[in-house]
Amino acid sequence: MMALTSASTIAGGVTAPRGFRAAGTSAGIKANGGLDLALLVSDAPAQAAAVFTTNLAVAAPVVVSREHLAASGGATRAIVVNSGCANACTGDDGLQAARDMARETARLVGCPVEQVLVASTGVIGVALPIDKIRGGLPATFAALGNGAGDGALAARAIMTTDPFPKEAATQIGIGGLDVRIGGMAKGSGMIEPMMATMLGFVTTDAAVPRALLDRALRAAVDDTFNAITVDGECSTNDCVMLVANGTSGAAVDESSYPAFLAGLTSVCRELALGIVRGGEGATKLVAVTVTGGATSADARKAAKAIANSLLVKTAIHGGDPNWGRLIAVAGRAGVAFDLSRAAVRIGSIVLFRDGRPFDEAAPEAAAYLSGSELTVSVDLGAGSESSTVWTCDLSADYVRINAEYRT
Amino acid sequence: MMALTSASTIAGGVTAPRGFRAAGTSAGIKANGGLDLALLVSDAPAQAAAVFTTNLAVAAPVVVSREHLAASGGATRAIVVNSGCANACTGDDGLQAARDMARETARLVGCPVEQVLVASTGVIGVALPIDKIRGGLPATFAALGNGAGDGALAARAIMTTDPFPKEAATQIGIGGLDVRIGGMAKGSGMIEPMMATMLGFVTTDAAVPRALLDRALRAAVDDTFNAITVDGECSTNDCVMLVANGTSGAAVDESSYPAFLAGLTSVCRELALGIVRGGEGATKLVAVTVTGGATSADARKAAKAIANSLLVKTAIHGGDPNWGRLIAVAGRAGVAFDLSRAAVRIGSIVLFRDGRPFDEAAPEAAAYLSGSELTVSVDLGAGSESSTVWTCDLSADYVRINAEYRT
Repeated sequence: MMALTSASTIAGGVTAPRGFRAAGTSAGIKANGGLDLALLVSDAPAQAAAVFTTNLAVAAPVVVSREHLAASGGATRAIVVNSGCANACTGDDGLQAARDMARETARLVGCPVEQVLVASTGVIGVALPIDKIRGGLPATFAALGNGAGDGALAARAIMTTDPFPKEAATQIGIGGLDVRIGGMAKGSGMIEPMMATMLGFVTTDAAVPRALLDRALRAAVDDTFNAITVDGECSTNDCVMLVANGTSGAAVDESSYPAFLAGLTSVCRELALGIVRGGEGATKLVAVTVTGGATSADARKAAKAIANSLLVKTAIHGGDPNWGRLIAVAGRAGVAFDLSRAAVRIGSIVLFRDGRPFDEAAPEAAAYLSGSELTVSVDLGAGSESSTVWTCDLSADYVRINAEYRT
Repeated sequence: MMALTSASTIAGGVTAPRGFRAAGTSAGIKANGGLDLALLVSDAPAQAAAVFTTNLAVAAPVVVSREHLAASGGATRAIVVNSGCANACTGDDGLQAARDMARETARLVGCPVEQVLVASTGVIGVALPIDKIRGGLPATFAALGNGAGDGALAARAIMTTDPFPKEAATQIGIGGLDVRIGGMAKGSGMIEPMMATMLGFVTTDAAVPRALLDRALRAAVDDTFNAITVDGECSTNDCVMLVANGTSGAAVDESSYPAFLAGLTSVCRELALGIVRGGEGATKLVAVTVTGGATSADARKAAKAIANSLLVKTAIHGGDPNWGRLIAVAGRAGVAFDLSRAAVRIGSIVLFRDGRPFDEAAPEAAAYLSGSELTVSVDLGAGSESSTVWTCDLSADYVRINAEYRT
């Protein structure tokens, strides 16, 4: 279930699909001189879909990208991203800066401004250094290549405190043609220290009508990016953008939609699990599976509650098979729950079922928990719906990272 | 607002009101031989009200106490409590053990079994050692005194990992007579390591009709025990019980209800804040006040979300005035929120208002955060309702305590 490789996995990220070029450079936004400006361009006119944060404290680049998608009908040529500053809670000046960032990119690419999407990640409440971005963009544009190395530089340029870059790509067949889907993402928590935070960019060289592209993105995100948690937070800047440019010659229609969705989901899952693996202070990747839900919403709600429980996350960090913590969270999750029919498994080891503990299995469960990729399961005993959410353990390093961070 | 003393505060706890006796002894439930069995008896027939956990994985003593209150109409003579074992997730055997614990207490006190309430706290999923409790109860009954020292022993006997016992008492005037209200509580998190967890017991020597007693308890708990959080968890055993025996000669009616409620609330608040101060790994007590809510439910929901945010709690632990974290949580709390009208204050220091940061105030805010009793405030900019919730900081010690705990 958590295997990241499949027969169709290929190397690279956003530039694995044909007709996309990318670059990552340093514009001096980060004080340490690291890569902080990424540009992704489709040579052919492309169609985009995007999902954005539900946070009401919405950042300026999210406002501008939404406006542009509405104005262009999704027609998109470029995405420009900076790290080191979230441009969130920055008022009218911040909005103007996000617009200027798009305008300068459109000038360089030679397209209408509404065909440029923008994203920012970094500290909240700090003014975007738009002069540095304007000054740096021509060099970023000049650096555009189309090799995997250029996509990799872009993937590095969108990082903040991420311990490693996240890239993924896959190849599927549609109508006898090879179609590629590739992506990059950043994020080291659902929200990072004063950061704003999770960004994902996915490309494909299939041609996908706008409605199908939107439907596929929402479906894929729901089972991947929306099914991960590091600390239960939702940032002011979160977005996932998907761009389809048709360069492969293959077109996705209703009959090939399932294959496209499967490929898209596999890329999104690899990127999403990369975020959890690289979660702040994380040492373990944990799949929380809830079965026996009265509804699928119940199953998801209980899985999220368990995945965000400090007591569950600390027990897993300590390798302690404390099944009572899982039951206690399920019981307070606000979903239908029947204690007499509930069950808890750590890996495949049953620790509670039929209303009674199986403590004799605790040593085996403790040994299982010493691994780094784990599954814990709770049956709510209330129906037949299920849901899986991915989380990481909670370590003292998480506290240290977030307590010692200074703006 | 957080002052624990008022003109009417008096010494002691559950035995400060007249006509109550208490004891705390060791029955050998705790492996270390510590106090683990508490008994509270009212010499006169008394009326009780109680509120219980909303967790659906409800513990056996909660089931039995609910049954007894229903059967007796609230008439209550005794409360028996053990620590060291929660008697939760223990099936039919656990229910039988809780009933046996009440029956043996009723025999000693000489009252109908339904006039005995029971509570347990400790490890989930372990069988209650009912033989030890039956063996120990006669000695506990024999130890019943009516001095403050006996109440203090009971307050110690209900502790699990609590760093200190929680007692409070107050005196008010009703109809020219002195009325006393006293209580004890335990809990070091909303839920503790594999524990089940928050218990509160409050006594008064006023006579209070059942309906008023119930109304007063619910109102007082809503603003005190239900307004604290350590880790956002809700245990399988939580309960607060209030017993009124009329020994003072004063009777509470609608006209004196406000004075009684004020006294009751002050006792409950002192106990509740004691739980937060003694939260696992806690070094700071933090009042989170949300104003500008469209509804009071919105204000409470946002205050709870902020008080449970790992990023807010770690920032406060580190003394970092990261106001962006407060805004980001308010924006994702699922309540009405207007960024352009929102505000953030740390203490009385404004860090964000009118859509823009006041970063020049950050050093002053950082100095304020070095204190141990703090207030942080968020205005949602969406109305005029407010709510205050108390929480503690999140330290690496919390993780250590909960990761290293072994059953």
